[in-house]
Amino acid sequence: MFQTFDSAGDPSVGKPRVEKLRRWLAENGLDGFMVPRADEHQGEYVPARAARLKWLTGFSGSAGVAIVLKKRAFVFVDGRYQLQVRAEVDLSVFAIESLVDNPPPSWLKDNVGKGTRLGFDPWLHTITEVKALKAAAETCGAVLVPVEKNGVDAIWDDQPQPPVAPVEIHPIAFAGELAKDKLKRLAAAIGSDGATHAVLTDPSSIAWALNIRGGDVPHTPLALGFAILAADGDHQLFMDSRKFSREVNAYLTQLVGLNEPDGFEAALAALAKGGARIALDPVLAADRLRMLVEENGGTTVAAPDPARIPRATKNKAEIAGSRAAHRRDGAAVVKLLAWLDRQEPGSLDEIAVVTKLEECRRLTGEETQMPLRDVSFDTISGAGPNGAIMHYRVSRATSRKLGEGELFLLDSGAQYQDGTTDITRTMPVGRPTQEMRERYTLVLKGMIGISTLSFPAGTRGSEIDAVARVALWKHGLDFAHGTGHGVGSYLAVHEGPQRIARSGTEKLLEGMMISNEPGYYKEGHYGIRLENLILVTPAAPVEGGDIAMHGFETLTLVPFDARMIEADLLTRDELRWLDAYHARVLAEIGPMLDGEALAWLENACAPLPHQHKG
Amino acid sequence: MFQTFDSAGDPSVGKPRVEKLRRWLAENGLDGFMVPRADEHQGEYVPARAARLKWLTGFSGSAGVAIVLKKRAFVFVDGRYQLQVRAEVDLSVFAIESLVDNPPPSWLKDNVGKGTRLGFDPWLHTITEVKALKAAAETCGAVLVPVEKNGVDAIWDDQPQPPVAPVEIHPIAFAGELAKDKLKRLAAAIGSDGATHAVLTDPSSIAWALNIRGGDVPHTPLALGFAILAADGDHQLFMDSRKFSREVNAYLTQLVGLNEPDGFEAALAALAKGGARIALDPVLAADRLRMLVEENGGTTVAAPDPARIPRATKNKAEIAGSRAAHRRDGAAVVKLLAWLDRQEPGSLDEIAVVTKLEECRRLTGEETQMPLRDVSFDTISGAGPNGAIMHYRVSRATSRKLGEGELFLLDSGAQYQDGTTDITRTMPVGRPTQEMRERYTLVLKGMIGISTLSFPAGTRGSEIDAVARVALWKHGLDFAHGTGHGVGSYLAVHEGPQRIARSGTEKLLEGMMISNEPGYYKEGHYGIRLENLILVTPAAPVEGGDIAMHGFETLTLVPFDARMIEADLLTRDELRWLDAYHARVLAEIGPMLDGEALAWLENACAPLPHQHKG
Repeated sequence: MFQTFDSAGDPSVGKPRVEKLRRWLAENGLDGFMVPRADEHQGEYVPARAARLKWLTGFSGSAGVAIVLKKRAFVFVDGRYQLQVRAEVDLSVFAIESLVDNPPPSWLKDNVGKGTRLGFDPWLHTITEVKALKAAAETCGAVLVPVEKNGVDAIWDDQPQPPVAPVEIHPIAFAGELAKDKLKRLAAAIGSDGATHAVLTDPSSIAWALNIRGGDVPHTPLALGFAILAADGDHQLFMDSRKFSREVNAYLTQLVGLNEPDGFEAALAALAKGGARIALDPVLAADRLRMLVEENGGTTVAAPDPARIPRATKNKAEIAGSRAAHRRDGAAVVKLLAWLDRQEPGSLDEIAVVTKLEECRRLTGEETQMPLRDVSFDTISGAGPNGAIMHYRVSRATSRKLGEGELFLLDSGAQYQDGTTDITRTMPVGRPTQEMRERYTLVLKGMIGISTLSFPAGTRGSEIDAVARVALWKHGLDFAHGTGHGVGSYLAVHEGPQRIARSGTEKLLEGMMISNEPGYYKEGHYGIRLENLILVTPAAPVEGGDIAMHGFETLTLVPFDARMIEADLLTRDELRWLDAYHARVLAEIGPMLDGEALAWLENACAPLPHQHKG
Repeated sequence: MFQTFDSAGDPSVGKPRVEKLRRWLAENGLDGFMVPRADEHQGEYVPARAARLKWLTGFSGSAGVAIVLKKRAFVFVDGRYQLQVRAEVDLSVFAIESLVDNPPPSWLKDNVGKGTRLGFDPWLHTITEVKALKAAAETCGAVLVPVEKNGVDAIWDDQPQPPVAPVEIHPIAFAGELAKDKLKRLAAAIGSDGATHAVLTDPSSIAWALNIRGGDVPHTPLALGFAILAADGDHQLFMDSRKFSREVNAYLTQLVGLNEPDGFEAALAALAKGGARIALDPVLAADRLRMLVEENGGTTVAAPDPARIPRATKNKAEIAGSRAAHRRDGAAVVKLLAWLDRQEPGSLDEIAVVTKLEECRRLTGEETQMPLRDVSFDTISGAGPNGAIMHYRVSRATSRKLGEGELFLLDSGAQYQDGTTDITRTMPVGRPTQEMRERYTLVLKGMIGISTLSFPAGTRGSEIDAVARVALWKHGLDFAHGTGHGVGSYLAVHEGPQRIARSGTEKLLEGMMISNEPGYYKEGHYGIRLENLILVTPAAPVEGGDIAMHGFETLTLVPFDARMIEADLLTRDELRWLDAYHARVLAEIGPMLDGEALAWLENACAPLPHQHKG
């Protein structure tokens, strides 16, 4: 199994470790220290060594920060973790604060007195974050002290070593563009930003640029490291050489200078001393890098990671790979759904479905000779009220039986060498209520609204997010998450910068892959989410139209549950899309199935019965 | 008539005046001077005295800027004025530049050499504008020189005096809130922005705050002036006392200190010297004010005009007034449309319709004892290809016959004491083509999409703009303007900050009035625009829903032309809305009409014949 079902948090760790950290504070002349859930690369997943927040507090969520003062200590988490944090930390040690309503910068103003010396590790906070923290500290008279050595590292005796998983070369058949050509494009982009160099701090960017993949963190095939790219083409990679086979070493040597990680700071300082203009992405790069450049006389150029947009706009090979991955993954999910339908209500629990789903993916991968490399995230398997918890992670302590009359929400994804998938379907266990069916249909209308949208070049994700919500809004309903996130190509399942959300300020460009996942959540009762991955298609002329339009190609190929669809709530055009989608699913997935799974699919993909009134 | 049909521009003025300005440049040690189409208040309409751009160049459009250098001169205009500017200025004197693609800051970088001394009048450029200009000047080594006296004023011998139209008190029955209570709210807002004072530079804000109206510029009942509001309640108004009757003087004296305009700079300087923290809206306030405050030791606080949101969120009296104004205005427009329908194709020109429409509004105002005070902007009356010119202003030179087979677009508005209106309808002259009908119906779908939208609190205009476009986009069509602009209450017909557009970053709050005006323009052939004013309604619970939702109440009451509607392109819900709207129009407007107009309305408001297929 690529995922575990342990209950991760342990509230008992907090007390002794916080005491130890307070002794370290005293020894270092500090009044407090900040411990974010972040590593030097600001990734969604961090290696065990960087799980400092969990080690110190017990809190195992994927976002948060602790502030430990001499007498008080605080853990900041967002809305989805309000319950979990209270189960995982010792509330006699930590007070809980909201990362959204009162994040550290605004909290500082009210809670920290004049002259307070608050330590932070500048490797773990971005330039933008530190700017906000410093501005807040100034208004309350506190002093932010960047530390040379992280306080948690200083007291964590058996802290794991950095990971050294082997690096593999990502085949050109899947990457679609030679690394040397990518590096040329990046060098040109750095020059046009007015910089001489750019630091890649995001391992996804390094993996994309060099056509390599690794295994240093869960669920995303990343090799942790840094790269300094140069407008003049003299690129340097800083990565532990133990990750490289002789062949990988030989390959990389053709592209970049190879350096051990401990040479990174000195190399950056040397460039700065030579007057380099070094581009850093303010929302990705550690403030430590800015300090290094500026303290050594260099100039920082605030510019987005130059690999971000090239990586997000997939090329033909990546698109072909993704289509293949989605057919394979669709077949696996259909096998799971067909199996699920044969089980009696009440006979399965959430973990059993996760286990079976991974088995379906593993077997389908073997049959098609494209093995499942990992799941792309911990499967969200939520029955009844657990489905209403948006970021639910099933553990042995919470695993619930799929009971008669409940809805079951299953959000999962796979990593194959040719593509990353992410799919959500919601199924009835036994007989759904009319309310469930109506709300499912409203969510489906939102998904179809996005699926069938045409839009002019330059449209941003924030401008179309409402299209997924209009039907729900009419009924006084909504969902509290974005409609879609970017997805990588055998890389991170959550990949920036494109998204369909209020915060989606990036233009939707040809080749971007995004999720389309409206939902509805009735707290304490059930959750509904429907998710397909979609691809921004080239702007094409519309017959009789004035301007070429972009649209979306749906990549995910798994039917929607007809038992949940209230056809009379759909327009003629929506029904037409749904029947056509199901016909396509049958045509593309059917040939990969036989027996009970094929029979199930044929039934699931039949045109919807309806008496359409408009 | 409240509008004229003169062809405003005169290309012959440019040459001698530019020569004169160049002599002034030489006398003042400058290499160039900028002449924007703006006054000290950044309003849409400027008094004759401030029409410097038109005086210097001949260009009469409502946005633009000239830059006159020693040897070359340039006029910058946006897309809508590309044709007009070429007819109105002497192209041997001026080169034309794009205000959008290459506005002065980016133009400077490529066109002005090191050491160039470029003069500008800091009263006519906002703080934000000057910041951008200065940054651009820095990169090219030019020097921006704020002048004490405007160069055009220096050479304009018969420059008109500032206007001194009488000020009237806006009755509380229409204002709905006493000025003294508004001033208390504003004082509190200034304090919570961390300021001691705020300068109101927008005459709309002064008119709203003091419940006064004036007549200093066309079509908007503004009295030009400045106010300094104080958190401690010691407010000062700077306005020419010749505008005040004894009664108005007595009224205003209860609210503010009254000062002549020439005391404004000294008063602001004195506050600054006393250490005041003075709030200026960076996108509204003249850079001259920032200079004054900072040069005298005060601190500027960048904060939006504090009257902006209170003014935009209309109270009960303003809403009641607007509803009444829209019934009256609807009756007037219906009379016009009924009359128009009785004319033979080819018998009328665009000006004749404008003249008749103003007569209809004037007579209806007299009948209802609420006289037409002004038109709220120059009527856009465009037949055939003229309808495709988005900001067309009809003149005797361009007025076109409404010919058989053409579409006729009529966008107009009125100023009544109880409200400001703005309505567009598009009518066929004779028999429309199938393409015209289909595209009209797509535009109508967009308008209905906005009209029937529900949305949660906090939704911004930019998030729903696409709702008006989805149907057009599906057919490869779009329109190149925002969906809606804010509208004042017997104030400016274009009033910020709310809008429905890509740039609409403000939340849509209860009581905001906005236009809902999707369109479609086929260059050289025809234009379609449909415009209603809508009101953001309070968040109300939806039956069976989880959260209260805002929606829109449609204020405008004039039927859509049934000859233009392709009912089969509408969904059942869209048809239902349309029939209900027409029934409402008949119920509310019918009682104000009789004879031919009433018969016309009854016919126009009949349910649409259709065989609905979905």
